Amino acid sequence: MSRAVVLLSGGVDSTTTLAVARRDGHELYAMTFSYGQRHAVEVEIARRIARSARVADHVVVDIDLRTFGGSALTSDIAVPKHGQSGAAIPITYVPARNTIFLSYALAWSEVLGARDIYIGVNALDYSGYPDCRPEYVEAFAAMAALATKAGVEGTPTRIRAPLIAMTKAEIIRLGASLSVDYAQTTSCYDPSPNGEPCGECDACVLRLKGFSDAGLNDPLKYVRR
Amino acid sequence: MSRAVVLLSGGVDSTTTLAVARRDGHELYAMTFSYGQRHAVEVEIARRIARSARVADHVVVDIDLRTFGGSALTSDIAVPKHGQSGAAIPITYVPARNTIFLSYALAWSEVLGARDIYIGVNALDYSGYPDCRPEYVEAFAAMAALATKAGVEGTPTRIRAPLIAMTKAEIIRLGASLSVDYAQTTSCYDPSPNGEPCGECDACVLRLKGFSDAGLNDPLKYVRR
Repeated sequence: MSRAVVLLSGGVDSTTTLAVARRDGHELYAMTFSYGQRHAVEVEIARRIARSARVADHVVVDIDLRTFGGSALTSDIAVPKHGQSGAAIPITYVPARNTIFLSYALAWSEVLGARDIYIGVNALDYSGYPDCRPEYVEAFAAMAALATKAGVEGTPTRIRAPLIAMTKAEIIRLGASLSVDYAQTTSCYDPSPNGEPCGECDACVLRLKGFSDAGLNDPLKYVRR
Repeated sequence: MSRAVVLLSGGVDSTTTLAVARRDGHELYAMTFSYGQRHAVEVEIARRIARSARVADHVVVDIDLRTFGGSALTSDIAVPKHGQSGAAIPITYVPARNTIFLSYALAWSEVLGARDIYIGVNALDYSGYPDCRPEYVEAFAAMAALATKAGVEGTPTRIRAPLIAMTKAEIIRLGASLSVDYAQTTSCYDPSPNGEPCGECDACVLRLKGFSDAGLNDPLKYVRR
């Protein structure tokens, strides 16, 4: 079995991506970031999902994006509720986040001899982040091929973004077909102190609409609905 | 004055690069990584150099590449002395290191509104690391242009590698012409407990040869010469 590094946040998209990497026949190496986010509960959820999926290894990398400020997800700016922000790129955007995450995954893949990195970005239902677009993923792969020993030796790491052109409803239907247990996942940017999703932030609204469009019930219990 | 992020390790190359960024007229934002390297003394030296250069800000980012293992610079493998390793890519290679460093610099540049990132890589005198080549730097810049808000809005971050085609002697002559105080810098991969450079590792041998070729004296005191 060839090895694959899978970026795992514990949300619908990354958990579905983990199931896709398993379906593709890989031995799984999950990587989660703890980055001073409000939603630190994500990390615990990712641990549980990685255990359930019996990954070969799971690392939690502690990085501190708060050093630079600049986003509602890592600083003290209030998280906007859905529809409050009219900007093309929302303030929940974390500067260069996927670039930092993929860079760490690239380092780990080189140590492991993994040929594939899976990331659950998607360009359609997401909120306009530049680093969720297919052209970004392709440019990262082109850079990675020049950055590493594996690339120089003719076996560059592939960046797999299997959800990139899917709607949230399609992602949820795919995951359901791969027996993903969405009761384990979380999506909320602004959960209550005991971890219940708010039901009102962009991520919750997209998730709820996804389940509704897929004709499936979201198994999570929300603070207000 | 436009802002520039400068990656600063405290060695000859990055300290010369800081001086080049100042010559180019930028307000300087220095970024140093503490990454479980044996040569942690680098971080203190970088602090001193940043203070001397009166940078507008200096951040030290704590990252732990030991999570992945894979290099003599971050794990317990002995650092080879010059000439001991016949491999094309030496074991002191840290997987994806420059990619991780540039990714953090990209995040900070976006928060600062900096248009330029300076990195002191050079392809000639360096030890065959794939991420020190011009084609790598260009590919990173192409990726960065697609990764960020600034890029999407038509003002992509430039990756400046002013030393990339220079020999070590040329770098030292350039630095001397810009009044760099090389007594403040360090290069050694394997310093003594009190911080003296070993004089025998690849980095020390390249540095000493550079000063010799430049017709200048290296102001450092070595353990053995």
